[in-house]
Amino acid sequence: MKDLDSLALKYDGGRLLVLDQRLLPHEERWVQCHSPDDMCHIIKTLQVRGAPLIGIAAALAIADFAARGASESALRLAAKNLLASRPTAVNLRLAMDRLIFNTDYLEVDGICLRAVDLFEEDRRLCDAMAEHGASLIADGDNLVTHCNTGSLVTTGTGTALGVIKRAWQQGKRVHVFVDETRPLLQGARLTTWELQQAGIPHTLITDSMAAGLMAQRRIDKVFLGADRIAANGDFANKIGTYNLAVVAQYHGIPFYVVAPYTTVDFECPDGSQIPIEERNPEEVGGFASVADGQPALKWTLPDVPVFNPAFDVTPAALVSGIVLDKGIFGREDLQAGALAQFKSPFEK
Amino acid sequence: MKDLDSLALKYDGGRLLVLDQRLLPHEERWVQCHSPDDMCHIIKTLQVRGAPLIGIAAALAIADFAARGASESALRLAAKNLLASRPTAVNLRLAMDRLIFNTDYLEVDGICLRAVDLFEEDRRLCDAMAEHGASLIADGDNLVTHCNTGSLVTTGTGTALGVIKRAWQQGKRVHVFVDETRPLLQGARLTTWELQQAGIPHTLITDSMAAGLMAQRRIDKVFLGADRIAANGDFANKIGTYNLAVVAQYHGIPFYVVAPYTTVDFECPDGSQIPIEERNPEEVGGFASVADGQPALKWTLPDVPVFNPAFDVTPAALVSGIVLDKGIFGREDLQAGALAQFKSPFEK
Repeated sequence: MKDLDSLALKYDGGRLLVLDQRLLPHEERWVQCHSPDDMCHIIKTLQVRGAPLIGIAAALAIADFAARGASESALRLAAKNLLASRPTAVNLRLAMDRLIFNTDYLEVDGICLRAVDLFEEDRRLCDAMAEHGASLIADGDNLVTHCNTGSLVTTGTGTALGVIKRAWQQGKRVHVFVDETRPLLQGARLTTWELQQAGIPHTLITDSMAAGLMAQRRIDKVFLGADRIAANGDFANKIGTYNLAVVAQYHGIPFYVVAPYTTVDFECPDGSQIPIEERNPEEVGGFASVADGQPALKWTLPDVPVFNPAFDVTPAALVSGIVLDKGIFGREDLQAGALAQFKSPFEK
Repeated sequence: MKDLDSLALKYDGGRLLVLDQRLLPHEERWVQCHSPDDMCHIIKTLQVRGAPLIGIAAALAIADFAARGASESALRLAAKNLLASRPTAVNLRLAMDRLIFNTDYLEVDGICLRAVDLFEEDRRLCDAMAEHGASLIADGDNLVTHCNTGSLVTTGTGTALGVIKRAWQQGKRVHVFVDETRPLLQGARLTTWELQQAGIPHTLITDSMAAGLMAQRRIDKVFLGADRIAANGDFANKIGTYNLAVVAQYHGIPFYVVAPYTTVDFECPDGSQIPIEERNPEEVGGFASVADGQPALKWTLPDVPVFNPAFDVTPAALVSGIVLDKGIFGREDLQAGALAQFKSPFEK
């Protein structure tokens, strides 16, 4: 398979490499993925994260496995295991469908080609989203974003953060309030890091502060990503997204979702059908030291009961618009069923 | 001054002792307060916290200072400094007014007597709030609370948590979802500890999860405290309270504030007049190791800009009722100006 390069995922001389995002922003350490089982572990432990990149990373793991001579049955089993590693994100399923399940004859060259396609296509999808989405941002806008949606979760410029970066590149002066995104602090650790590198003014806040800023009219728009978008426009995203959608609605502030078409699940009629992954209670009771998976710091007593859903579902009614690579779908478009009218060119 | 005893504040054989709440739930360490300056530091560093207890702790520090022979001018200066240590909580002002500023002739016995009165009165106020508030809770209710409002912030059973404990003692089966309360995690560290000791079923959540639980109809009511209530019913409380009020309103879920009359600022017409304290950015960029005030863990890069207001203001229009020691004031009562109609019996 040819060499591939992005901020957090590489294929380099036959080695599949992943930037361990748990260690950011303090350390940039690349880990090698030796097998699909390795990749399952890498996905579950959030060394690689973000719906688009998970799908592509899994595709490269399968292609690498095929290139090493894996049998057809081993490939099918590996794809099945990878599917289960992150149940909410749909990009993973699309990737496995394209590489393995929607193909009758599995041969190495075809699998590798399709994996490379996914990798390279994602970059173009990012550019298309960025271009469409940037048109929604005005000079001087104050934005809120949640979780991390930039170059760490795609092979290109990102989804929501890609839109913000494009607006900035166009000369629009924006300021980004970054939700820290408890419990795993993707906003605090990763989004501030990406914004700092891009030179875009930003302010870190706790997830409970955006509402107060909105009440003070200090927020103009919300931009964030999605892990799975149902055909009716309902979508699942990082826990806390629904809270932000409700407070945006209450204050009359536009709320935009940015995702590639690979995140749209055309077979999922609405948000109630999206499975929501629950994660380790330790993530809420302390700060997980990412290097070894053990809590570096535990601030609760050991036996405190915890609820820790990784995602929540926001109904389309709270969405001002979904920015896809294909264009912007407004609230009326979503209500009219616009999403269901187009399908992935690769799907059967 | 006579001996006084509560969960987090004691006067014992002439020694003023404070339970260092920064170390909970892992360690119960008492620190001695030697002077009003000491108490300023203890308040600013949140070793003692919670609007009612801050006022009483400051009163005891002044009384102790008087008992050690402080001059009238030293007492006045000390009271002024204590006032500035936590600008949002109004209980501090009431306490200083009673002990020092509303008195023409400052003599030791009078000051000590009034400090003891404040301490003992607070316990009775808690019982009265608990009794009124418990009537709002039904058997089987699922509740959300924010920050910590129990025996750690009063000399009695607490404000909102006191209400919940009273309902539990009455045999009502309740379940409490505890907002972790970023950035300082009073919910995660302190409220779970108090609920565990009381044997009340509870589940820790991040501050962004309550909205999703409400959407699933898994929450019946919200109970929380206040740091200052304006005469029109607007109130300031721990950051994140306004967010919770908005999402409760959106889901049609009753939202109750519990506080003693000492938290009502009759001279403050509305929430816009309440000063909001901003705290150290380090609190958001990591987890402050409480023992030495330095961050034990920093998860952002060092120069990330942070916004860290300690409180926010919730308008009375989002409040279903304010539970005071004097009774329950519903939305209509608040709109009719009911709060402004009574005054502290001790105020001039």
